[in-house]
Amino acid sequence: MSHWTLHPQLAADTHVIVRWPLCDVLLMDDANHPWLILVPRVAGVSEVIDLDSAQRLQLMHETDAASLALRGLLHPDKLNVAALGNMVPQLHVHVIARFRTDPAWPRPVWGAGAARPYAPGDLAERVSLLRETLTSAAG
Amino acid sequence: MSHWTLHPQLAADTHVIVRWPLCDVLLMDDANHPWLILVPRVAGVSEVIDLDSAQRLQLMHETDAASLALRGLLHPDKLNVAALGNMVPQLHVHVIARFRTDPAWPRPVWGAGAARPYAPGDLAERVSLLRETLTSAAG
Repeated sequence: MSHWTLHPQLAADTHVIVRWPLCDVLLMDDANHPWLILVPRVAGVSEVIDLDSAQRLQLMHETDAASLALRGLLHPDKLNVAALGNMVPQLHVHVIARFRTDPAWPRPVWGAGAARPYAPGDLAERVSLLRETLTSAAG
Repeated sequence: MSHWTLHPQLAADTHVIVRWPLCDVLLMDDANHPWLILVPRVAGVSEVIDLDSAQRLQLMHETDAASLALRGLLHPDKLNVAALGNMVPQLHVHVIARFRTDPAWPRPVWGAGAARPYAPGDLAERVSLLRETLTSAAG
């Protein structure tokens, strides 16, 4: 099996928050939506069902932990959880806090408009808060 | 806890394929995409993280079984698996077989265009094939 490296498109679009036992947890650089992406560090896998059973269970736990953290911090109207991968084949799971007031509501966020990068101060603050919360959430 | 009933919008858009231990498995009436929807028969739940741990584990198993069945039957280029629920708050999980030749590719299927209902003969054939496959998949 080849060595896992983060897909360059994901690397370009996100900031690393924390490294959990299975997944790197990334923040999408889009101030329109609080948007985490979980990427299992398993080389060559595009589908959840191509993980082994222990990895699938761990992915479920980490997806749930990310969902709980976003809900606890931000009290969204809805969570969106999705593994799509039509554009970037490396397996990754989106966990997004949705609000009735957000620019894409009620549509999905993908393709709903250009990303709006965080202002530097807002980015630092969000990364710091998420890193603190998600580090303890995985403990 | 109130009694679970299928949300009327899901009932209107789908056909029942099979009843698994946790979920009703539905076929979206859209011939553009082989598209299953798994609906846990748990009243009042909108988010995966509001299921209890046994239910979450079972939902994972059933989602994986639906994914494996669609891949085994149809050999899609990609699977899309998602719990969104912005329009219909009753918890439901989409499992969709995607093809590079399908009308929405590479965009997500939601909002990509009007559903194209199955012709009656095609519907009966697809329901029959899926029912046979999914009934044995859950066994």
